[in-house]
Amino acid sequence: MEVLVFGASGYSGQELVRILARHPNARIAAATSDREAGRPIDVAPELGLSHVRHDDASAMASRDHVAFLATPAETSAELAPRLLDRGARVVDLSGAFRLSDPAAYREWYGFVHPKPELLAEAHYGIPELFAMPPTTRLVANPGCYATASILAVAPLLDLTEGPVIIDGKSGTTGAGKKAEEAMLFAEVAENLRAYRVGKHQHTPEIEEALSIRAGREVKVSFTAHLVPMRRGILVTAYLRAKPNVATRDALGALERAYAGTMVRVVDRPPETQRVLNTNGTEVGAHLDARTSTLIAFGAIDNLVRGAAGQAVQNMNAMIGLPIETGLR
Amino acid sequence: MEVLVFGASGYSGQELVRILARHPNARIAAATSDREAGRPIDVAPELGLSHVRHDDASAMASRDHVAFLATPAETSAELAPRLLDRGARVVDLSGAFRLSDPAAYREWYGFVHPKPELLAEAHYGIPELFAMPPTTRLVANPGCYATASILAVAPLLDLTEGPVIIDGKSGTTGAGKKAEEAMLFAEVAENLRAYRVGKHQHTPEIEEALSIRAGREVKVSFTAHLVPMRRGILVTAYLRAKPNVATRDALGALERAYAGTMVRVVDRPPETQRVLNTNGTEVGAHLDARTSTLIAFGAIDNLVRGAAGQAVQNMNAMIGLPIETGLR
Amino acid sequence: MEVLVFGASGYSGQELVRILARHPNARIAAATSDREAGRPIDVAPELGLSHVRHDDASAMASRDHVAFLATPAETSAELAPRLLDRGARVVDLSGAFRLSDPAAYREWYGFVHPKPELLAEAHYGIPELFAMPPTTRLVANPGCYATASILAVAPLLDLTEGPVIIDGKSGTTGAGKKAEEAMLFAEVAENLRAYRVGKHQHTPEIEEALSIRAGREVKVSFTAHLVPMRRGILVTAYLRAKPNVATRDALGALERAYAGTMVRVVDRPPETQRVLNTNGTEVGAHLDARTSTLIAFGAIDNLVRGAAGQAVQNMNAMIGLPIETGLR
Amino acid sequence: MEVLVFGASGYSGQELVRILARHPNARIAAATSDREAGRPIDVAPELGLSHVRHDDASAMASRDHVAFLATPAETSAELAPRLLDRGARVVDLSGAFRLSDPAAYREWYGFVHPKPELLAEAHYGIPELFAMPPTTRLVANPGCYATASILAVAPLLDLTEGPVIIDGKSGTTGAGKKAEEAMLFAEVAENLRAYRVGKHQHTPEIEEALSIRAGREVKVSFTAHLVPMRRGILVTAYLRAKPNVATRDALGALERAYAGTMVRVVDRPPETQRVLNTNGTEVGAHLDARTSTLIAFGAIDNLVRGAAGQAVQNMNAMIGLPIETGLR
Repeated sequence: MEVLVFGASGYSGQELVRILARHPNARIAAATSDREAGRPIDVAPELGLSHVRHDDASAMASRDHVAFLATPAETSAELAPRLLDRGARVVDLSGAFRLSDPAAYREWYGFVHPKPELLAEAHYGIPELFAMPPTTRLVANPGCYATASILAVAPLLDLTEGPVIIDGKSGTTGAGKKAEEAMLFAEVAENLRAYRVGKHQHTPEIEEALSIRAGREVKVSFTAHLVPMRRGILVTAYLRAKPNVATRDALGALERAYAGTMVRVVDRPPETQRVLNTNGTEVGAHLDARTSTLIAFGAIDNLVRGAAGQAVQNMNAMIGLPIETGLR
Repeated sequence: MEVLVFGASGYSGQELVRILARHPNARIAAATSDREAGRPIDVAPELGLSHVRHDDASAMASRDHVAFLATPAETSAELAPRLLDRGARVVDLSGAFRLSDPAAYREWYGFVHPKPELLAEAHYGIPELFAMPPTTRLVANPGCYATASILAVAPLLDLTEGPVIIDGKSGTTGAGKKAEEAMLFAEVAENLRAYRVGKHQHTPEIEEALSIRAGREVKVSFTAHLVPMRRGILVTAYLRAKPNVATRDALGALERAYAGTMVRVVDRPPETQRVLNTNGTEVGAHLDARTSTLIAFGAIDNLVRGAAGQAVQNMNAMIGLPIETGLR
Repeated sequence: MEVLVFGASGYSGQELVRILARHPNARIAAATSDREAGRPIDVAPELGLSHVRHDDASAMASRDHVAFLATPAETSAELAPRLLDRGARVVDLSGAFRLSDPAAYREWYGFVHPKPELLAEAHYGIPELFAMPPTTRLVANPGCYATASILAVAPLLDLTEGPVIIDGKSGTTGAGKKAEEAMLFAEVAENLRAYRVGKHQHTPEIEEALSIRAGREVKVSFTAHLVPMRRGILVTAYLRAKPNVATRDALGALERAYAGTMVRVVDRPPETQRVLNTNGTEVGAHLDARTSTLIAFGAIDNLVRGAAGQAVQNMNAMIGLPIETGLR
Repeated sequence: MEVLVFGASGYSGQELVRILARHPNARIAAATSDREAGRPIDVAPELGLSHVRHDDASAMASRDHVAFLATPAETSAELAPRLLDRGARVVDLSGAFRLSDPAAYREWYGFVHPKPELLAEAHYGIPELFAMPPTTRLVANPGCYATASILAVAPLLDLTEGPVIIDGKSGTTGAGKKAEEAMLFAEVAENLRAYRVGKHQHTPEIEEALSIRAGREVKVSFTAHLVPMRRGILVTAYLRAKPNVATRDALGALERAYAGTMVRVVDRPPETQRVLNTNGTEVGAHLDARTSTLIAFGAIDNLVRGAAGQAVQNMNAMIGLPIETGLR
């Protein structure tokens, strides 16, 4: 399969190039970066490729291509329709197609969605939880926090009730490669803080995915924290357990959901370092019986399972390969 | 005031020595470390002191001394009664005298308390929240997570109901200076994990303190996380807001509680780096109206406000000084 | 003494404010930041001050003031003459007055010096090594690498010959607070690299200071490296030992040079963490007899001894106080 | 090829398992760890293997095996002869067979070598620089600092004269996984220090390798520094340039030496993050004309090119595969 990578010089884009460069069934036809146009692609020198401009790559798209968009949501919202029109299939790593309600884009993303009719068509791609329809042309690749949260919580919803509180903690690459004072080493090291409290844009996609899985409306309170590390997300979710639920029930539900997948259920607390640089996920759960709180954990590498790796899982599903192809 | 510092070579003990060495009303009469006995006290070379043995320092204690115990809980439980018998006043930084129920020691600390009769006498020392009785001889200095949690949550209890969920995140010095594989740089850096899930020993002291403040039983689910940084604790607490409570009500309650103290109420998310190496505290709150969750934050330096600094506040209160003396 | 701090929102400027706020003989009359003008000075809230604009502060300068310039070299080169003209004394933390040869500014700093006549007057301020003339109005506060290098090497020059090779290693705050991609946490953490190889602007001031001390021309090859930590500089210098020189000769020379000062000679390798957040310096030396290489080490906190702390030492010297005043 | 990995639970051993698990021509027959015996091999769960004891693995060795020893030097010195006697070929990652002079073991390693007759037979394995004789049974895999140093310096020796000064800087995994206070996160983070000054055991192997390459005796002064990062080594070497040597001569010599290999010559300063988790090397050079110092840089991942990756290169060479097999 020929693939196009848009936004190849950001952290997620670089990771996409790294993974696709050694994927047995993919060949990178072009990788774009307006800023780096003309310069060689450093992260995979063996390819002998240089970055091209967005427009040049979109002009070459055809039905023979899968296009990955590692671009900002507003860019993706403009780019995806054009690529689909040219017959390409699209895996979008931004939030542009993750929400089913167009109005939600104004609230959470701050823009009016230019192609609301595509929202119903886009498939929200967590392969272990949502089967992909065979005709899928457009995949909304979930957010990094959302991936860790949904994988940790979805199988536990039958054991719990009420709203879900999710405390998310992430390394800095999740914020992208933009130069800003708050992300300088000296500001981040030896520091810990919450950010975008009450308004993180991954909240509605988590709610929507969990509600679909639960078959009831699930409300989510999500809080993001910035941790002095480069990569890795750990989410700690707090759910109200139904009566008589025990830790082993929760671990059992997780085991059943993820048997035969790359998601690993562990009976110690998950750690981000165990999945660093891999597409693996660690999930776990513990009942705090004193307060009937079911505590669920999910650990991923935000750039692999939380972005590029999952995008490749979704490409694999779209073109009929086993979803782990090129990711072990 | 002459002071004795027991356990002066650990992280909290070193911080105590640093603070007391420049405290205008304190003179370090002895600082102990069985391991370092005879070796100079590196962190305050200007004192010209060497470490002495625990037994030598306890033999010199008298009614002229305040003794700080930066020792393990079991050591403190044995040492404090002896020092009190010799007339000294004691500020204990361990958990040995923080809980009022002797039976709780077996459950949370794994030992039978040797002096249960002292538990009723010990004063739980958070000066901004609990006035110290004038005859206090023994202060239980709160745990680091407990300090951040109680300062962040206590003023908000009237606005909320139900159990309190606390997600605690700490740098590594909270674990002390013991050589163990899990605390090696290579294991902690680029890593994030929960630990002692469902059984962290600071849980019961938080519950007890919050229940006293609220005038009702407050249940707490507390989860600790290890963050790749040396110092700093951030707690994020999730409370169920009563109807019609707004963010400004919460900020107002915090402002009223801490006017004129070193606790600073901020309307952005608190950050640990802002209080690094200081006795300051940052607290904040935000109502997530979508789920009626009141999110409260507390940030401290775990070795200063979370240990040595608060211990000095307690000494100041005990000997009649303004509580910030030597801590600005 | 009334002091003015120019450039108070950068890392060095903030450190200046912190130190001066508790200096027993200083009162901050104004602290400037064009960017933060009007906003409160966060690092010392007890002062109750807000940042003012550069121009407003320079307009109030008089013979009653010492002005600290924590500004870029070109700004300092313009500002210092104006302040001197108004009668103020000046401690400049930039490189604007460190070199005696005006022509060197074009080569190393990339600008033509606007006030070459002041270069001869400026005093290069390392108090332990260069006595300050009583009439000094303008102090060139040495660079961070230069301070560590000169303190480590100067006393050893009589024992060695030939050029000096200096391998400097610094935390990131030395680069200032400017938002640039190369200084993002994700780029700096888990990374190590040299920078400005062969052209670091601290090279000529080290050469000049060492040549003066040695009474002969000393050539220096200096290479700077960026280390994933916030603060701290370690320099490792390699000198050719004269015959029969032993490690103890080198340690003896250091001891004699620094007896009674805040510079500490250690016979283990110096560590930056031992001087973190302090004005202390650790120096050490070891003869590698196999190659007749005398290896010298110097460790400082780049923002304190390498910038703000040394600037205050220089102010102390200028106004007749013991040089450690306010710095212990 | 069937391979045996001795010492599979240390950092280098784990990396070996990771690489060999996906090597197209290798199958791990056994991986040992006396401490972890019976427990599953976490770093490559897809293998379905558990650790076995050293003795059990050495008892199964035969001429069909290549054995990797990621064990301490004294253990390797005992184990290698036994494995060779059973017909296996051996790649030893320790220093046990790196030096040709038996007497040097007492000086640099502190033990009397039990099998000095094997030292002449062992091949010092840097494939790009030293061709492996076809009958090689025993490879001494170079030390991590030595690998970076020799790769950076060897091609430059014809352009320089006199002793070589090498300033080595390493992340913490080079020290292995042993629990000791000096390697705790809190002691290493925000810290920088030299260690084993004047006596680092990689010094003699660097001298020997460079002397062989140069065809003259090359003396080396090597100083190791511990940097707060997990992985990565950067060496900065200082050589005395012959007259008229320019930076481009040095870069040319490096290019010629490494054309067609995984060693990349760069004309900006090499960075460890560019080779993180890979078997790549970055080398570079710059002439400091002011002092006729040729500054050479080498950056590697200490666990891959500095240990496990190079060991696999050596296995590849020994069994007739292209040396990069399984390492791209």
